[in-house]
Amino acid sequence: MNASVTPKGSLEILSQIEVEKLKKVGENGLYALFRQCALAILNTGSDSDNAKTIMEAYPDFEIEIIQQDRGIRLNLSQAPANAFVDGEMIASSREMLFSSMRDIVYSETERRRNRSDLSSGTGLTDYVFHLLRNAGIFRTGEDPNMIVCWGGHSISDEEYEYTKEVGHSLGLRGLDICTGCGPGAMKGPMKGATIAHAKQRHDRSRFLGLTEPGIITAEAPNPIVNELVILPDIEKRLEAFVRVGHGIIIFPGGAGTAEELLYLLGILLDPDNIELPFPLVLTGPKSAEPYFQQLHEFINDTLGFEAQQKYKIIIDDSEQVARTMAQGMQEVKEYRRRLNDAYYFNWSLKIQEEFQNPFEPTHENMASLALNTGMETHQLAANLRRVFSGIVAGNVKETGIRAIEENGPYRIHSDKSIMKPLDNLLKAFVKQRRMKLPGSEYIPCYQLVE
Amino acid sequence: MNASVTPKGSLEILSQIEVEKLKKVGENGLYALFRQCALAILNTGSDSDNAKTIMEAYPDFEIEIIQQDRGIRLNLSQAPANAFVDGEMIASSREMLFSSMRDIVYSETERRRNRSDLSSGTGLTDYVFHLLRNAGIFRTGEDPNMIVCWGGHSISDEEYEYTKEVGHSLGLRGLDICTGCGPGAMKGPMKGATIAHAKQRHDRSRFLGLTEPGIITAEAPNPIVNELVILPDIEKRLEAFVRVGHGIIIFPGGAGTAEELLYLLGILLDPDNIELPFPLVLTGPKSAEPYFQQLHEFINDTLGFEAQQKYKIIIDDSEQVARTMAQGMQEVKEYRRRLNDAYYFNWSLKIQEEFQNPFEPTHENMASLALNTGMETHQLAANLRRVFSGIVAGNVKETGIRAIEENGPYRIHSDKSIMKPLDNLLKAFVKQRRMKLPGSEYIPCYQLVE
Amino acid sequence: MNASVTPKGSLEILSQIEVEKLKKVGENGLYALFRQCALAILNTGSDSDNAKTIMEAYPDFEIEIIQQDRGIRLNLSQAPANAFVDGEMIASSREMLFSSMRDIVYSETERRRNRSDLSSGTGLTDYVFHLLRNAGIFRTGEDPNMIVCWGGHSISDEEYEYTKEVGHSLGLRGLDICTGCGPGAMKGPMKGATIAHAKQRHDRSRFLGLTEPGIITAEAPNPIVNELVILPDIEKRLEAFVRVGHGIIIFPGGAGTAEELLYLLGILLDPDNIELPFPLVLTGPKSAEPYFQQLHEFINDTLGFEAQQKYKIIIDDSEQVARTMAQGMQEVKEYRRRLNDAYYFNWSLKIQEEFQNPFEPTHENMASLALNTGMETHQLAANLRRVFSGIVAGNVKETGIRAIEENGPYRIHSDKSIMKPLDNLLKAFVKQRRMKLPGSEYIPCYQLVE
Amino acid sequence: MNASVTPKGSLEILSQIEVEKLKKVGENGLYALFRQCALAILNTGSDSDNAKTIMEAYPDFEIEIIQQDRGIRLNLSQAPANAFVDGEMIASSREMLFSSMRDIVYSETERRRNRSDLSSGTGLTDYVFHLLRNAGIFRTGEDPNMIVCWGGHSISDEEYEYTKEVGHSLGLRGLDICTGCGPGAMKGPMKGATIAHAKQRHDRSRFLGLTEPGIITAEAPNPIVNELVILPDIEKRLEAFVRVGHGIIIFPGGAGTAEELLYLLGILLDPDNIELPFPLVLTGPKSAEPYFQQLHEFINDTLGFEAQQKYKIIIDDSEQVARTMAQGMQEVKEYRRRLNDAYYFNWSLKIQEEFQNPFEPTHENMASLALNTGMETHQLAANLRRVFSGIVAGNVKETGIRAIEENGPYRIHSDKSIMKPLDNLLKAFVKQRRMKLPGSEYIPCYQLVE
Repeated sequence: MNASVTPKGSLEILSQIEVEKLKKVGENGLYALFRQCALAILNTGSDSDNAKTIMEAYPDFEIEIIQQDRGIRLNLSQAPANAFVDGEMIASSREMLFSSMRDIVYSETERRRNRSDLSSGTGLTDYVFHLLRNAGIFRTGEDPNMIVCWGGHSISDEEYEYTKEVGHSLGLRGLDICTGCGPGAMKGPMKGATIAHAKQRHDRSRFLGLTEPGIITAEAPNPIVNELVILPDIEKRLEAFVRVGHGIIIFPGGAGTAEELLYLLGILLDPDNIELPFPLVLTGPKSAEPYFQQLHEFINDTLGFEAQQKYKIIIDDSEQVARTMAQGMQEVKEYRRRLNDAYYFNWSLKIQEEFQNPFEPTHENMASLALNTGMETHQLAANLRRVFSGIVAGNVKETGIRAIEENGPYRIHSDKSIMKPLDNLLKAFVKQRRMKLPGSEYIPCYQLVE
Repeated sequence: MNASVTPKGSLEILSQIEVEKLKKVGENGLYALFRQCALAILNTGSDSDNAKTIMEAYPDFEIEIIQQDRGIRLNLSQAPANAFVDGEMIASSREMLFSSMRDIVYSETERRRNRSDLSSGTGLTDYVFHLLRNAGIFRTGEDPNMIVCWGGHSISDEEYEYTKEVGHSLGLRGLDICTGCGPGAMKGPMKGATIAHAKQRHDRSRFLGLTEPGIITAEAPNPIVNELVILPDIEKRLEAFVRVGHGIIIFPGGAGTAEELLYLLGILLDPDNIELPFPLVLTGPKSAEPYFQQLHEFINDTLGFEAQQKYKIIIDDSEQVARTMAQGMQEVKEYRRRLNDAYYFNWSLKIQEEFQNPFEPTHENMASLALNTGMETHQLAANLRRVFSGIVAGNVKETGIRAIEENGPYRIHSDKSIMKPLDNLLKAFVKQRRMKLPGSEYIPCYQLVE
Repeated sequence: MNASVTPKGSLEILSQIEVEKLKKVGENGLYALFRQCALAILNTGSDSDNAKTIMEAYPDFEIEIIQQDRGIRLNLSQAPANAFVDGEMIASSREMLFSSMRDIVYSETERRRNRSDLSSGTGLTDYVFHLLRNAGIFRTGEDPNMIVCWGGHSISDEEYEYTKEVGHSLGLRGLDICTGCGPGAMKGPMKGATIAHAKQRHDRSRFLGLTEPGIITAEAPNPIVNELVILPDIEKRLEAFVRVGHGIIIFPGGAGTAEELLYLLGILLDPDNIELPFPLVLTGPKSAEPYFQQLHEFINDTLGFEAQQKYKIIIDDSEQVARTMAQGMQEVKEYRRRLNDAYYFNWSLKIQEEFQNPFEPTHENMASLALNTGMETHQLAANLRRVFSGIVAGNVKETGIRAIEENGPYRIHSDKSIMKPLDNLLKAFVKQRRMKLPGSEYIPCYQLVE
Repeated sequence: MNASVTPKGSLEILSQIEVEKLKKVGENGLYALFRQCALAILNTGSDSDNAKTIMEAYPDFEIEIIQQDRGIRLNLSQAPANAFVDGEMIASSREMLFSSMRDIVYSETERRRNRSDLSSGTGLTDYVFHLLRNAGIFRTGEDPNMIVCWGGHSISDEEYEYTKEVGHSLGLRGLDICTGCGPGAMKGPMKGATIAHAKQRHDRSRFLGLTEPGIITAEAPNPIVNELVILPDIEKRLEAFVRVGHGIIIFPGGAGTAEELLYLLGILLDPDNIELPFPLVLTGPKSAEPYFQQLHEFINDTLGFEAQQKYKIIIDDSEQVARTMAQGMQEVKEYRRRLNDAYYFNWSLKIQEEFQNPFEPTHENMASLALNTGMETHQLAANLRRVFSGIVAGNVKETGIRAIEENGPYRIHSDKSIMKPLDNLLKAFVKQRRMKLPGSEYIPCYQLVE
């Protein structure tokens, strides 16, 4: 498909210098990054989660940026047909194109400006704040109501139906949804909430998608997302989730979901956060009960009893999940009001720098992660998080897949006491087909070594 | 549940005289009618379609109308719980309560005013126009895009999924939906279109429900409906459908759906309407193919080949259905523009008075319907329409059910040439469980007599 | 000027029967009335207040009503140029054309329906309610804030500037303005409030103009009016003022202003209204002090001390006027809330039928008005009101001017005790040039007879 | 007055680091600057234009910045009472407070980021672009319609009325207004346009005020301004005017107005801008005719005939002025469309760096300005512009007034051929009381030296 699109709103105005930077190919240019994100967005609804395959499927896709009388125009050629209806681009896809343009330009500008500050935790948080503010996602007049839904992109039909039900129950209570913006558990709750919001005449629905260039290709934003932010890397994206979301629901998922849970537990276990209310529910249909039992045991075996107290498991009761969240919103509101903390950005949440600093899952970095019972809990959580982050990369991200192709599976070293539960969990993920979208045999991208 | 609700908008302002009339019990009062509609609206999502049973299930339901400083307040007691979330009424149900109040008061006022005029066809059309205008459903600035979806309230899961798909395809093309506002084929398209409109950022979605007091109890408005109009009887409702809708899709259904199809064909066969474009598609999933073949044959056997040319049957292709409608909208627009006819009300459609005058399905009226091949086609269509109208009443309407309980099944007399295909069609409806929501054995409320 | 206009909003949708009625010339047709109102509206900014002259100045003005695809279109020929800018009609004039169309059609329809009821006071009030509701001027969600400003159309520059200041002070407090919608004291407050609302970012400003066919030609709606209602006669218009306004300010004026004051005092003196809060302020610049002193004395001499207690005179202090009104709004709100009376329509105000029934100022009716000190106060107020109503007609209304031309001045009979103060007041009005717009010598249309 | 205010919109969200910077007193802190701008904004309607006096009149004025649950809160103490009505701050003043906060924080951040780029013309333009974009004043969907009105803050009543008339005529044609946001000629057009926009139901009125910290105190923003941008210095402000405005009207004024005219002529005389359409009208009432004749001669004597061709003088005809501008908008639109230049920012206008680089009017800088006939025209225009810029500073700006107090009047050296017309012009300004608001004798802050 070829198309020529302009933004409907007026947020996406670029200066001549910014346009130049965006068009520029090569080392300092942003074109390659923009092209990749645009391709991912237009590829919505695709049934592949292999970023490499997707990129290779549209070698001739090009995107031309034109400054014109009424603003910016994008001319696309050889674009995937998914995002078009009778030759016209779906409005949400068009919006997302311009959102990604906005974020890519701004991230880069800010990154340069903050270069010196990006070494400190405060500087990193400030960076995330600026990116989100520029994306226009802060709403000052509104009470806490943003529920983050995490969970697998590859889930069973029954699980998918359940995520819709939960979304419907949340939506009936006027709650908004934030996800990682791909398919599966990231789409279902938005779909359910869309219907519920229609019933409640809730016409300012927010369906916030937070992603990053590495994952967007494998998990293309579903078109219900009406606010898209592309953070520069996985750690910024995780920080955005926990600072913007007011409560979190975790559906069944695979390595990515485990990464998210470990990240969150690692933070909530921080003594500085001990009094902070943060509603966290793990939930799924009846059939997912064994899954959550296993996860629950894994947490017990690695992070211990205290970590288990940070969440609540609810099986097959979407109304109960929604009521728990709605009530949690009251507690969050009370707490923030008392501390004079903003509703729209969780300033008081302490995030240790080991959770903020980017982790690059090279074979070397993966091999040198320390995983043993003697470590402090939050340090262990941080490293376990990195393990799963690496596995996600090896499964679906372009660079990860290439690295595995070249060097074979990651080698992960650990204590027996950690390795055993980790091995069990990973094997279960594989068996339950949670690692990748179905279609072929899953070949593990990792190897556990004692 | 008890509740006290006020309207969000400002359309529902009553004069003191109107409030009195609405509160008044007995012959000239409107209370009984209002209570019945309110109960139906709150009973949304119920799994019964037996109006009598529903009314009897809430004998203590009361509704108090109060004039207060900021407008009207309704105090409800002993209301069904379906329409509430955590003790608060769902916004759409609240809206519909006030819509029904508005329509009941206005219908009555207009009826009195127009008493003399209601004998002529022009007067009846004017009456329908005034009711719809008062309900605020005319939008002058908009192109034709209102697709009426007819079909059964009792359909299979596969058929229901298909109606959602069609709604999604329509919604992606910016089309709005109008239905009879119950479950099944009346809900699915709205659900699909809601999701599609979200994707297209189409934030002025119209989900128009047209009903009448006799049917509303059996087919409670689904909460996605965001414009509800209660017409005074079935003939006004049918006229509203064909004057407000710009195209019609018919999904599989039972007696009600057959009534609607016959009504429409009877009108379209009128020589005065011969050039009028009126997109009409019959569609369903693969499994519904035999159903449509049978209907197609029935039309052939009764109204003939010419009638068959008025519609197009599309099997299992929601995109094709939507494209057909989208294209039909262009033709409708062209035609109306050429004739200077309004987009929002199909003035040029000729409706013979036999389709406008109310038919009361008493045993006597049913027994005296003429059905024979010698009749003029549109006259035969009119009477066949009445047959099915009576069967709907006998199946699900309160008065109809009572009449059948007292006097046994309706006796329908006809020529053999008509009786045979009619018998086949009705038997098929029974066999395919299209007459009533599943749950019990269907006992026919009619008897065919040669 | 020739022009072709369509409504921007969607309220102005007519049925075919209504269009026919509007186009119809002659006894039962509405064309003449519509043409007259349209001409008045387009003649905005004219410096004549002689309705007869105005009508005669545009003998070839025609207005054609066309039903078309997107609604109604009006084709105007030989229209006054005042309402056009570079050949295009000013938006407010266009709006008002359609408002007048709406009101003329609806008044007629309602009048027919209510024929039997229009003999009772309740019926008349219900009629006024229906006209206002149909014009869409009721807002349910809003607190009392509609300030009626009465006063002359022919006032001095200093007085005009002062009315702007008062409007500005009202507007700064978020108050809206309702007037009789002509020039002078009916325009100034709206102008001042427009600026103040801009400063307060009050973007839902309401500038309500209430008029009637007899007066609209002489006092053309000023274009700031953004809600125009044409009531059928002067008594309906006065009732609309006092039921829709929450407080009233009276600026210097002539016969029309005196009529309004007497009407209001007559009502407020009714024992049934004794506890009803109704903020009423008489105000003007320093130079207007003698004017108000004289009016104050006239009230004393005719209606007495009690009547004087119903209003407050404030000289040259716009801020104080506005503060008084703002505080009065609180009292009105409290009272209505306590009585469960609507904010948008003052149901609890009692209006005797002698104030509701139309008074036609024929020479005979004028001559037979009883005016003597023995009468009950409210009866005297009612008849004094009629005296001034007749004088307004004789001064500026088309029928009144013709009647005077034919039969000479009205003869008004009264007690000496009434005649003396009345004569003084009228002479002062003439001397101060408050009877007519300046330009020629004023020839009284009345004669006082003992 | 003491007050505590929060923003209504949601644009004004600050990070913790930004809040800190804003609260910080001393060298790197922004508090002093913010306090000064806030004081100027609240001092609206003051009748002084002496920045120094104003600052000294409120020594105890303080402003506290608080981060809280729903955003930022400002606590003000000892604030001027002008901006309050019955104890509550006028909405426009509140908005402007937050606008100034936004601009001060952003200017500083951007200044740091761009430090290296601010030496080039392209870098300076980019800086201005970023400031304006951040202030949200670019509207992509709109046609050119922003008319800049320049002229004196100290003008006669007749001139003031005329500026209102011109604003009214512009507003009737849907044109928006941009000014320097003080009183006089900067307020009148906005007032007139407000009324006209109300008549045209133009509800997205834009009244853009562009100012800078040095001038804001002397020329407090009038409250009709609904978009305020504080640029960092006079050169950025002038660039903002000519890149955002689509046409310019110059009313009678003093030194500031002369500065603006010379700036604009200097740019338009640039050969690169020769084909660029830029509607420019000098206008005033009949009484201002001699003023414009003198200015016209001054242009002739200094910049020559060619410069005179860049503008059109229209005397006492507001309709003609507005029609000229409306037609000019078409030409601008055509030109930009043809060049693919943005409507919202005039990228193609070439501005030489001598017009972009800040000029600090120290006594030394003023004394060393070259002014002689041998210079290139645009260079001469640039230096003449600087002369007037210095005189404005010496008249009303805080630093300027202090400098004059300390060092006596500026000494301005020039050729006789320049000095003569310059002297005439300045003397006329003094005589016509255009230098300062009336009240005291004007003591020149300059001395012309051959």
